[in-house]
Amino acid sequence: MLALSKQAEDLHARLLAFMDEHVYPAEPVYEKQHEEAEDRWAWPPIMEELKAKAKAEGLWNLFLPESDYGAGLSNYDYAHLCEIMGRSPIAPIVFNCSAPDTGNMEVLERYGSEAQKKQWLEPLLEGKIKSCFSMTEPAVASSDATNIATEIKRDGDEYIVNGRKWWSSGAMARNCKIAIVMGKNDPNAEKHRQQSMILVPLDAPGVTIERPLHVFGYDHAPKGHAEIHYDNVRVPAENLILGEGRGFEIAQGRLGPGRIHHCMRTIGIAERALEAMCERVENREAFGRKISEFDSIRKNIARSRIEIEQARLLTLKAAKMMDEVGNKEARQEIAMIKVIAPEMALNVLDRAIQAHGAMGVCQDTFLASAWANVRTLRMADGPDEVHLDSIAKLELRRQRAARG
Amino acid sequence: MLALSKQAEDLHARLLAFMDEHVYPAEPVYEKQHEEAEDRWAWPPIMEELKAKAKAEGLWNLFLPESDYGAGLSNYDYAHLCEIMGRSPIAPIVFNCSAPDTGNMEVLERYGSEAQKKQWLEPLLEGKIKSCFSMTEPAVASSDATNIATEIKRDGDEYIVNGRKWWSSGAMARNCKIAIVMGKNDPNAEKHRQQSMILVPLDAPGVTIERPLHVFGYDHAPKGHAEIHYDNVRVPAENLILGEGRGFEIAQGRLGPGRIHHCMRTIGIAERALEAMCERVENREAFGRKISEFDSIRKNIARSRIEIEQARLLTLKAAKMMDEVGNKEARQEIAMIKVIAPEMALNVLDRAIQAHGAMGVCQDTFLASAWANVRTLRMADGPDEVHLDSIAKLELRRQRAARG
Amino acid sequence: MLALSKQAEDLHARLLAFMDEHVYPAEPVYEKQHEEAEDRWAWPPIMEELKAKAKAEGLWNLFLPESDYGAGLSNYDYAHLCEIMGRSPIAPIVFNCSAPDTGNMEVLERYGSEAQKKQWLEPLLEGKIKSCFSMTEPAVASSDATNIATEIKRDGDEYIVNGRKWWSSGAMARNCKIAIVMGKNDPNAEKHRQQSMILVPLDAPGVTIERPLHVFGYDHAPKGHAEIHYDNVRVPAENLILGEGRGFEIAQGRLGPGRIHHCMRTIGIAERALEAMCERVENREAFGRKISEFDSIRKNIARSRIEIEQARLLTLKAAKMMDEVGNKEARQEIAMIKVIAPEMALNVLDRAIQAHGAMGVCQDTFLASAWANVRTLRMADGPDEVHLDSIAKLELRRQRAARG
Amino acid sequence: MLALSKQAEDLHARLLAFMDEHVYPAEPVYEKQHEEAEDRWAWPPIMEELKAKAKAEGLWNLFLPESDYGAGLSNYDYAHLCEIMGRSPIAPIVFNCSAPDTGNMEVLERYGSEAQKKQWLEPLLEGKIKSCFSMTEPAVASSDATNIATEIKRDGDEYIVNGRKWWSSGAMARNCKIAIVMGKNDPNAEKHRQQSMILVPLDAPGVTIERPLHVFGYDHAPKGHAEIHYDNVRVPAENLILGEGRGFEIAQGRLGPGRIHHCMRTIGIAERALEAMCERVENREAFGRKISEFDSIRKNIARSRIEIEQARLLTLKAAKMMDEVGNKEARQEIAMIKVIAPEMALNVLDRAIQAHGAMGVCQDTFLASAWANVRTLRMADGPDEVHLDSIAKLELRRQRAARG
Repeated sequence: MLALSKQAEDLHARLLAFMDEHVYPAEPVYEKQHEEAEDRWAWPPIMEELKAKAKAEGLWNLFLPESDYGAGLSNYDYAHLCEIMGRSPIAPIVFNCSAPDTGNMEVLERYGSEAQKKQWLEPLLEGKIKSCFSMTEPAVASSDATNIATEIKRDGDEYIVNGRKWWSSGAMARNCKIAIVMGKNDPNAEKHRQQSMILVPLDAPGVTIERPLHVFGYDHAPKGHAEIHYDNVRVPAENLILGEGRGFEIAQGRLGPGRIHHCMRTIGIAERALEAMCERVENREAFGRKISEFDSIRKNIARSRIEIEQARLLTLKAAKMMDEVGNKEARQEIAMIKVIAPEMALNVLDRAIQAHGAMGVCQDTFLASAWANVRTLRMADGPDEVHLDSIAKLELRRQRAARG
Repeated sequence: MLALSKQAEDLHARLLAFMDEHVYPAEPVYEKQHEEAEDRWAWPPIMEELKAKAKAEGLWNLFLPESDYGAGLSNYDYAHLCEIMGRSPIAPIVFNCSAPDTGNMEVLERYGSEAQKKQWLEPLLEGKIKSCFSMTEPAVASSDATNIATEIKRDGDEYIVNGRKWWSSGAMARNCKIAIVMGKNDPNAEKHRQQSMILVPLDAPGVTIERPLHVFGYDHAPKGHAEIHYDNVRVPAENLILGEGRGFEIAQGRLGPGRIHHCMRTIGIAERALEAMCERVENREAFGRKISEFDSIRKNIARSRIEIEQARLLTLKAAKMMDEVGNKEARQEIAMIKVIAPEMALNVLDRAIQAHGAMGVCQDTFLASAWANVRTLRMADGPDEVHLDSIAKLELRRQRAARG
Repeated sequence: MLALSKQAEDLHARLLAFMDEHVYPAEPVYEKQHEEAEDRWAWPPIMEELKAKAKAEGLWNLFLPESDYGAGLSNYDYAHLCEIMGRSPIAPIVFNCSAPDTGNMEVLERYGSEAQKKQWLEPLLEGKIKSCFSMTEPAVASSDATNIATEIKRDGDEYIVNGRKWWSSGAMARNCKIAIVMGKNDPNAEKHRQQSMILVPLDAPGVTIERPLHVFGYDHAPKGHAEIHYDNVRVPAENLILGEGRGFEIAQGRLGPGRIHHCMRTIGIAERALEAMCERVENREAFGRKISEFDSIRKNIARSRIEIEQARLLTLKAAKMMDEVGNKEARQEIAMIKVIAPEMALNVLDRAIQAHGAMGVCQDTFLASAWANVRTLRMADGPDEVHLDSIAKLELRRQRAARG
Repeated sequence: MLALSKQAEDLHARLLAFMDEHVYPAEPVYEKQHEEAEDRWAWPPIMEELKAKAKAEGLWNLFLPESDYGAGLSNYDYAHLCEIMGRSPIAPIVFNCSAPDTGNMEVLERYGSEAQKKQWLEPLLEGKIKSCFSMTEPAVASSDATNIATEIKRDGDEYIVNGRKWWSSGAMARNCKIAIVMGKNDPNAEKHRQQSMILVPLDAPGVTIERPLHVFGYDHAPKGHAEIHYDNVRVPAENLILGEGRGFEIAQGRLGPGRIHHCMRTIGIAERALEAMCERVENREAFGRKISEFDSIRKNIARSRIEIEQARLLTLKAAKMMDEVGNKEARQEIAMIKVIAPEMALNVLDRAIQAHGAMGVCQDTFLASAWANVRTLRMADGPDEVHLDSIAKLELRRQRAARG
């Protein structure tokens, strides 16, 4: 409803054009190059070409607000660009706006030392290397951050990191060089002051990438999701970010914008699925009628449109609130979109899959792989259950206050 | 997300205060007076007192945009007021903003002759009389307007009206004086030029109010929903509105804003239901815990908050579009909220009912009667099925255009 | 799937015939007589005629298993008859098989003294008087039986009853003479030994029927749901059933069969709703087609058929288990049908209502009143939430045992 | 509810024991062997060992009713065995009871010539070769069988087959030797007499296996789903099954039992998922509680139990009806389970996935791959939409008949 800033409108228009001209046509090329590559974990050559083009056109690092490094867009503005990028699985990387790098770059930008910025942030911003975020652990319910068991222990000028992490997304890629690892440095401190975050180069001795985790049947190469064993890994003390016991605080700061981005990309996916569904049902006949003439199919289209519109408006409202009143005041809205955007997209994708018949579940459309991808979002950064509970807690609190 | 106009903000604040000070406290009084009244179809005395107060404070006829008669608010502005009024079943009447009078007044204001305005619009605007809208017929699927069978036939200086209508809401009230009747004057004309609308005084010979229709077990006295037999009713030719064959056109013009109003009132109901639910579950224990501590209850609260927020944003977007690009361009959005707002409110109400236990279905809360009321909205002005189909039609058309 | 007993098959056939010949045709007569009656709380004369006919044909008191008083049918057999009776709101009373009398009669038959049987069971079995069950209380969450606050205190040869009960269904009827009241005689006893049940004549001094409770606007006259104040009501000590502290035990014994009955009647309602829907959509046109040709309507019909079939099979399985392994072993199944049968019927009814358009919510079909009725079953005898929890508890326990 | 036959009870017990002793422990071995195999499309060696053991114990070819080749079990009996086999993705092959071989063997047994039986049925029954069924085509909506475009043209002593098929499941396996191909021999015949079925050896000149189709990222090796190009493939005339124009008839006969099997296997999957969920939530803590103590999780368990029970009962009823009144009379029930069993299992699996957190979507449990598998069943043998429509058609017809 609200207008975009001039700058964002310009970027929006150029992004749309770039997608049409370069990204969509590159999708099958990318897939083919990847399929034929000797190394599943290396980027197909076309990706570097696309990145170079995007950089040349200034469609690069659009995500960083309030920073000289980024485009200086508000969350509200950037959300609109995110939706466009979300439409293609390769686009976020093309524009150097893909998770988890965006979150990691924000962490470095906001909380990193000058040395950390120089060493890691700059090559990330240039798209030369990739990063991962090592938070979740296989042995505990990581939705409850106090469960985290990885240790970060000071030893002279170094920290020693010990622990097993998984779902370190992106870590399988050959050019992934650095992990931000969350661990406990003081299990006796106050609950939210026990954790720290530390930078661990993936080539440090003691770091073992154990295996790629699959998502349904996809290995998501060349990015992948790694299970990583940090076994007595020693890193210099200056690799600690912000300070001991600040891990939870950093994690909180990292999440807000990331969720908006995920949600808007998810909305982009849903839009593309609805387009695919509409096209399919107008070009297919059964029992003497175009499939688009069956009213139950039409209802599915209508429901999809309604759900997409609602999720988009709520996500934009959350973005706007973050801009105007800050992440903390917006946390009920952020939790709401975290739940509703993936749920909505799964519905829309499932209907599109069903409308495609058996083609919908296979590699001939983006639908099945998008579905699998989005399904993980109901657990990433905390499962739905946790976010619904937060929403309720805030609601009950506000209602109590209103009753006086 | 968008700010209200200065005027609307002022009205919004005063409306909230008026509700707290006068309307909510009057609800039990109104109920008691009505229960003890000799005549179910007369208004309890407190209603006239409330109307006088509202009029005195300028909280009166807020609905009419673009007219000297009304407050001149945009749809977007007025929508916010509507939500507040929707919170109490008696409030819309207190502020002379209740359906179907608002729609009827808009019709008269936009399409009525000076004489029609003088005779009917003015007393309606003053709140002295009430009106009804006779559109739906028992014998045919009225969602398809071409099915309408009532006849409006010219005979000299008069029109003769013949037909059976039902769900003429408000017509049971003693002070309901006038009906706008939709009928066919020329069954051979082009499909959407067959219908006319005509003003029929309820005391005209040949008009018989056959019975009140119930909604679930409620008769909705003193307003009621009447089945009316128009049996050779003669009215002066100048009672026709706008001209022969213009009925469909008037109906279309009438619907857009009406739907926004209904939806926003429905959102007001849902908000009040969620409040009631939150209060209940914090003040009730079972199995040793406050009910608000059960996480399935908390999820219901969270879901309700999410659904309300989404429906409100979509309704406000529709209102904004009506203001900026007109009803026609906004028709997909209007159809969407027509479907989603009642559905959402039924969900929220049902959860609130369940959380209240058996109390929830009886007369001790507003929940059961609100539920029944909202349930009718899934059929009023066309059933969900018709609106979903329109949404799909528009979607398929737009997608076709985009594919080129 | 399993055959009925010979006796049950014969009764089934005769019941079907009786319904067609006597009950369905009597429904409008009953309604008219009731509407025109001076006293809403007296039974329309046709009811006594129907009861006499049913008794004459031996279609009377079919519910009592293992007793000389009843027909000696198994739960499985009787369930089939119950479904038939459930199809008409007046039928259960016609055959003297209506709640809460059936449950009360079972209590008296199984736990009553000879004197109690003589005084209350016999006139109940003859259909001369009616009874109510005073369990639920307005002030506490009665789903947790330990919350019950009504007192039953011994005083010499009498007990004194003090408390406020509501949802004492049937108590508004003029011929309702006796209440079974649940209360606490010893709040210090072990949790499930604190309660007793006692017989309280409704004309005893201190019994005040405060008001009828409504269900979505219906007062359910002449049966009604009463709020009753028991204020220092004195009854002879021999009115206590079974003994002090046995109330919970009696309540448990009372519930199993009652739930089967409710569920099967609910399935009868759903079947009738589906019939009404099918008839409606074949006799109505919109947009140039029979409504039954819209495939979204057809899907609703198909869904309804699937849901009904599934609920019926599960209910019959529960009945069979009660017959073969007893109520205790069948308690997971009983809890399952308690949840699913009302939910299913509400879905089927809601679709039927929607297919009827505005007619569906008013008094012109049985649909709206049936919906309201069934809605209460999601809370009667414990809300869904409690039963779902029991199902989960039993499931987790069994799975634990299987894992060893 | 109904007892199994003696024979089936014995088989049931031995099957359960075999699963515990041999199949479950073999699952990880099978996976490991497959992962390490040089050829994804060959069977891991342990499979032949398991087959030999099953054959030795007489747990082999249990599916064939009314035939000397099979165990002679009723559909009702066999359904119970099918559920057990469904619990493990490798079990149906172990017992030579896997689709599409079972359907193909039934076709050969019922409609094949002696020579066809000798050549193809016998090695299939011995488990020496595998078969596929080439029905679905990429270019048309194959849910409407009249759309099929593949040609089977007589040319002297041969038939020439031309067409493109996909989703020929099992055809990727190295030991898949024969396809049953559906095609049109006479496009001018009456609608259901245009099609024929013919046996095409996969090594016949002109048969090209173009590629494996994936299901949500899984290639389902070594079985796989093939896209096959039949390009002027010549086969002897005696390869035609039953006769020209009999293809539709064979297809119908093939489907009924196959659907029961699929549904019961699906129920087995759902049971195993519920077990996995129960175990998980009892062994995991978050926020200071076992996950099994969260009541929303408990509700998911209860819902799953309810849905499984209902689907199983309906499937068994359908099986019983097939035994007693035949496939045709049972077709509404068969259509119902075709819709409900996969839907139910998807729900149960999704809840189990969510309860496992991120582990649920990866290769560490069977849940994600089972979900993907079951998702295809909403389209295989006709999409839900077609079956729902059949259910409605039969319902409307029966209701019409009942109204007279």
